Amino acid sequence: MAANRDPCAKVPFVIAILSGGVGAARFAMGMSALVGPEEIAIISNVGDDEVLHGLHISPDVDTVIYTLGGAINPDTGWGLEGETWRVMDALSDYGGLTWFRLGDRDLATHLFRTQLLREGNSLTTITEKIRKRWNVRSKILPVTDGRLRTILYSIDGKDERRLSFQEYFVQQAHRPEITRIAYEQSSDAFATEEVLETLNSASAIIIAPSNPLLSIGPILSVPGIVNLLTRRREKVVAVSPIIAGKAVKGPAAKIMAELGLGPTALGVAEYYCEIASGIVIDSADASLADAIKLLELKVTDTNTIMNSVEASRALAKVTLDLVAEGLY
Amino acid sequence: MAANRDPCAKVPFVIAILSGGVGAARFAMGMSALVGPEEIAIISNVGDDEVLHGLHISPDVDTVIYTLGGAINPDTGWGLEGETWRVMDALSDYGGLTWFRLGDRDLATHLFRTQLLREGNSLTTITEKIRKRWNVRSKILPVTDGRLRTILYSIDGKDERRLSFQEYFVQQAHRPEITRIAYEQSSDAFATEEVLETLNSASAIIIAPSNPLLSIGPILSVPGIVNLLTRRREKVVAVSPIIAGKAVKGPAAKIMAELGLGPTALGVAEYYCEIASGIVIDSADASLADAIKLLELKVTDTNTIMNSVEASRALAKVTLDLVAEGLY
Repeated sequence: MAANRDPCAKVPFVIAILSGGVGAARFAMGMSALVGPEEIAIISNVGDDEVLHGLHISPDVDTVIYTLGGAINPDTGWGLEGETWRVMDALSDYGGLTWFRLGDRDLATHLFRTQLLREGNSLTTITEKIRKRWNVRSKILPVTDGRLRTILYSIDGKDERRLSFQEYFVQQAHRPEITRIAYEQSSDAFATEEVLETLNSASAIIIAPSNPLLSIGPILSVPGIVNLLTRRREKVVAVSPIIAGKAVKGPAAKIMAELGLGPTALGVAEYYCEIASGIVIDSADASLADAIKLLELKVTDTNTIMNSVEASRALAKVTLDLVAEGLY
Repeated sequence: MAANRDPCAKVPFVIAILSGGVGAARFAMGMSALVGPEEIAIISNVGDDEVLHGLHISPDVDTVIYTLGGAINPDTGWGLEGETWRVMDALSDYGGLTWFRLGDRDLATHLFRTQLLREGNSLTTITEKIRKRWNVRSKILPVTDGRLRTILYSIDGKDERRLSFQEYFVQQAHRPEITRIAYEQSSDAFATEEVLETLNSASAIIIAPSNPLLSIGPILSVPGIVNLLTRRREKVVAVSPIIAGKAVKGPAAKIMAELGLGPTALGVAEYYCEIASGIVIDSADASLADAIKLLELKVTDTNTIMNSVEASRALAKVTLDLVAEGLY
């Protein structure tokens, strides 16, 4: 049977994207423009999920959905366009917890998610409902329906200080120097069926230009994911989020340096070389290509700054070309 | 020692009010106008508390605070004046749970309460913070910091149907015919120290014109409360919420009839006669006074419709006069 199988006809074409928040969302927009929204499945980090005020917040999932739904606030790259802040302002009158600003319409997403979780639905099922409300035609798949939390540790005087991702990222504005990261998991934090099926059958698996340690690392920490990617390494290509030693946004370079990974495209390549067969780097880092090739990685350099959908689309094309390179 | 004690000098003057929502809040406004806000302590029902969207909502507590804080929506008697509905409208776009309408500013109260509960604070401590934000100078005391829930049962075909208070009251608009009520309690649902101290030392204890079975019943179900009130019966006076066989608002008369309690001021008197020594009834029910006296209850009739603070204040005065009657 297997020998008679026509892979081209039977396996649906799908591009899987391992995804963090803002950068990945922009990349997904480009990929969607290139191959069509139905052809992509986004495997989303949930390590930065947080429960605040009793509400379950999934920032990376929401950023991707709002972006693909055309509803994202273009100025910030997160949150909804034309948002209002009635609830936060009133909460501020209480002296309540307002360091994580939740807009009024965005809050509805968290109320909806939390209620459905309490009724026993999985994050995957709920995410499906949320993306449909925003008319997003790509699949958005939380990597796990279990509990996965990225925890950052820093030294505070003599004591080790424990921060959730959002405490580090938003409350502390990623200022603390990090000494180690833990991806905490509940015993049921295995990859969902949908994620495993997608990664097993995907025509290409792209690691979006997200923070390797904070956005992709949590996904890779889920049991089974690294093995699966290693087995399918030929189809996996990463995009470096580091350009000329700096992150376009956020603390990727800083935290890589703090944890002893070179804060360069080469450091990114080192981090991914077991699970990816290629990496797309920025033209500014073209001089690193030879060093990266020593890691047995294919390399292409191009413009990786996604300041328009057209630029994202061009970057997406380069990643697919790199996956295809050497397959024939 | 006890014989030398001057009760007048040592015991602070306080009027305790056993309270449900709207009717009790209006009554408390009148009492506050009469004796001053610092002199009253409101012991609030929490049997209609509900967790929706993961948020802990305490409708009776909030109605009393918003009313005494001058922020209540005067048209509805609950919720905040000048409220907006951004979050509910957005939740409605999800097809989310919107039968219990939560305004934007009101939501901040529930976010605040839920976060503090999650941090380990008691409902009593949190209520204290909420009433201070609204500049309420009266004490607002949840009867218990444990879990107390009013559950209503009705017959649905052959099956018994279980409804939380809010499902019955708001979602079903108190239409179902009720066959029994249960006041469900967690094992730690004892009266708080603050409540016991208040009831033990109060110069008068007034049972507000709230629904006996749905608002006062839950308070009375908390272990120790009935014993304490029975012991202090001489200081306890109730106000009938039933006027000429009808409730001013809500299903009090309907549910009393369904559960075999006469839906009249006499039925109310029967319900309270072991714990109260007097009852204030509406002048429309003056003809019931003699029957009520057979229950060994003092009776006064007056106007009990609180369509102004002045009317509430006059009603409050009549209740205090009735407590005082026979004390000298």
